[in-house]
Amino acid sequence: MRTSEIFDLLRDGRARTRSELARESGLARSSVAMHIDTLMGVGYVAPVGDAASTGGRPASLFALNPSARVVVGVDVGATHVIVELADLSGDGIAASRAELDVAEGPEAVLGWVAGAARALVAQQGRELDEVVAVGIGLPGPVEHATGRPISPPIMPGWHRFDVAGWLRERLGCPVLVDNDVNIMALGEQRTAWPETADLVLVKVATGIGAGIISGGRLQRGARGTAGDLGHVRVPGSTAPCRCGNEGCLEAVAAGPAIAARLRELGVDVASTGEVVELAAQGSPEAAQALRAAGRDIGEVLAMVVNLVNPSVIIVAGRLAGAAKELHAGISEVVYRRSLPLATEHLQIAASATKGDAGVRGAVVLAIEHALSPDVLDAELVAPGRPPQPVVMR
Amino acid sequence: MRTSEIFDLLRDGRARTRSELARESGLARSSVAMHIDTLMGVGYVAPVGDAASTGGRPASLFALNPSARVVVGVDVGATHVIVELADLSGDGIAASRAELDVAEGPEAVLGWVAGAARALVAQQGRELDEVVAVGIGLPGPVEHATGRPISPPIMPGWHRFDVAGWLRERLGCPVLVDNDVNIMALGEQRTAWPETADLVLVKVATGIGAGIISGGRLQRGARGTAGDLGHVRVPGSTAPCRCGNEGCLEAVAAGPAIAARLRELGVDVASTGEVVELAAQGSPEAAQALRAAGRDIGEVLAMVVNLVNPSVIIVAGRLAGAAKELHAGISEVVYRRSLPLATEHLQIAASATKGDAGVRGAVVLAIEHALSPDVLDAELVAPGRPPQPVVMR
Repeated sequence: MRTSEIFDLLRDGRARTRSELARESGLARSSVAMHIDTLMGVGYVAPVGDAASTGGRPASLFALNPSARVVVGVDVGATHVIVELADLSGDGIAASRAELDVAEGPEAVLGWVAGAARALVAQQGRELDEVVAVGIGLPGPVEHATGRPISPPIMPGWHRFDVAGWLRERLGCPVLVDNDVNIMALGEQRTAWPETADLVLVKVATGIGAGIISGGRLQRGARGTAGDLGHVRVPGSTAPCRCGNEGCLEAVAAGPAIAARLRELGVDVASTGEVVELAAQGSPEAAQALRAAGRDIGEVLAMVVNLVNPSVIIVAGRLAGAAKELHAGISEVVYRRSLPLATEHLQIAASATKGDAGVRGAVVLAIEHALSPDVLDAELVAPGRPPQPVVMR
Repeated sequence: MRTSEIFDLLRDGRARTRSELARESGLARSSVAMHIDTLMGVGYVAPVGDAASTGGRPASLFALNPSARVVVGVDVGATHVIVELADLSGDGIAASRAELDVAEGPEAVLGWVAGAARALVAQQGRELDEVVAVGIGLPGPVEHATGRPISPPIMPGWHRFDVAGWLRERLGCPVLVDNDVNIMALGEQRTAWPETADLVLVKVATGIGAGIISGGRLQRGARGTAGDLGHVRVPGSTAPCRCGNEGCLEAVAAGPAIAARLRELGVDVASTGEVVELAAQGSPEAAQALRAAGRDIGEVLAMVVNLVNPSVIIVAGRLAGAAKELHAGISEVVYRRSLPLATEHLQIAASATKGDAGVRGAVVLAIEHALSPDVLDAELVAPGRPPQPVVMR
């Protein structure tokens, strides 16, 4: 018997009577009463007053209680970490941020994360056992099933480190680990495009990657590497890539490659950050280099459109935020190269959540795990306990 | 209350007692008894004897009755049509096949389909209202939501034709329409790779296309065009394509393009069929042309591996069946060009279902619709009928 079915109905935030819940779920009123009692017993659902009376005693209204538990969302970037405490509706309660280099290694970074999470919990007057799940995004490939990074290029010391186990030991709840671009796609879709089932988010910064949501679900693939756009070959390019192949998108259109294009044009830039600054100052050379990079990214995104057929492409990341030329180059090639039926209703948009997509996605990852029917039912019914007798009212 | 939950437990084919079903579902024994009565009432479940007695009256065993209803699977190719009657476990009961050119138009082709389906139903001594769904695959782009082909190149007269509505009117049940490559992927995965959640099937024939299964589900994308591999650009190619772009995979590696390569080598071939024959005769020029085509297909599949991260790639279609050189060319490039983590456990295999993948997939499409929880529950409970009283036993 699934108490989670009743809980699921209430997740839209609207209050309902027992009779309404019985009608919407198709369950008997007696079963609904039992499930409501179970959910009130653990605080997930609370009475919120009475429905308008139709004669006789008015029926009680019940609603989801988002503050019954909390989750922690963590966004680990190359040089920053954000930890957020959020309620079960995904609203942030409090957050901490540190400038911290991911290359300092897993124990330094995750140690700060665990400390910050504990401090946020305490500051809000909550207990650690009210945290039902932690979601965390890392800037490198992650084997989602085991929660371990796999040969992440900018994360020395993290290869196969048991991120989920290490944090679970310190925070006492399930930990979901994914790569940063996947959680950004999740955060962007759930926050800004909730009606859109097929969305691709491409992040353009020091590297290039994508998160793919198809049929409403994040697609990770067999080994968790789906969406690796950075090492797709760009038609016409033979530039050598650090991965050992040639012509990879990252080797021609990520921040360092754009900086190199600019140096060829005689402009003195060393880093992705300086490219962003130069574009902000209106440099025509930066505009030219960014449009060329956008066209290369567009070539690969045209393939994504043909293969995955999204209705929305979000261009995010440090370079995307800085440059309309990048966006223009991408759009030009995607609309020219993709099939008409696939682009008829295709939107290419900037990120609406800005720098917040990662931590929003990490919070979503944690909530969707904690409130998934199996996890919720297992928490509500002690294992091995016999089915509850039906209480007639 | 979902009778489909009990039905779902029985779909593995194993017989169970009411107590076993209560334990596995977590439902009360009284609810299980009610659901079993409902399912027996419509014939979907049947008693199949008694469990071994543990003292006292032995408990009855119940099992799914796959012959309670039938479905029809239809595979429409460029020059053939197959119609199969199958039971609810997906096993074929009887089939008809005709050599029929899809270019004869929808009413000629679908008219034959409807007639063949009715004849098969009658021959088997069944009634038309025992057919609960029809699945049909077409050799062109299909808007899955509406069941209409969209500008299909080899299907004159079919553009926006209401295939689902036309057949529904004649066969009296829901009709699910998809493109041939999607249903081949579905048929291959459900039949030969049931444990594999991430599978891509690429069909290499007169055209090139792919069906993508991610997370166990067929991915169609926002407009149903996902998997369109044929018009992805091959690095290094500028060959003009009939779609108006240049360098498309179909323009360099499909049957007609391979025939053109062979003519350049001085070999006189006109059609895809002749290429297949030539390869079967061991022509070294055909081997060379097929390996080159395989490498081009491999370039695009390497992108698919990076983007979708399947654990199995099936190479199917007329040319794949004929030529190990095509397979060799594909494997060579996919393993060289894709990321190590993505190819570590990647298998590239030939189709196990051979020419049968399409009709198997069409049958699966029909069954999965007819037995989906919402459709099944709607069929079992008349709309607006109040919840059944719980009968204690």
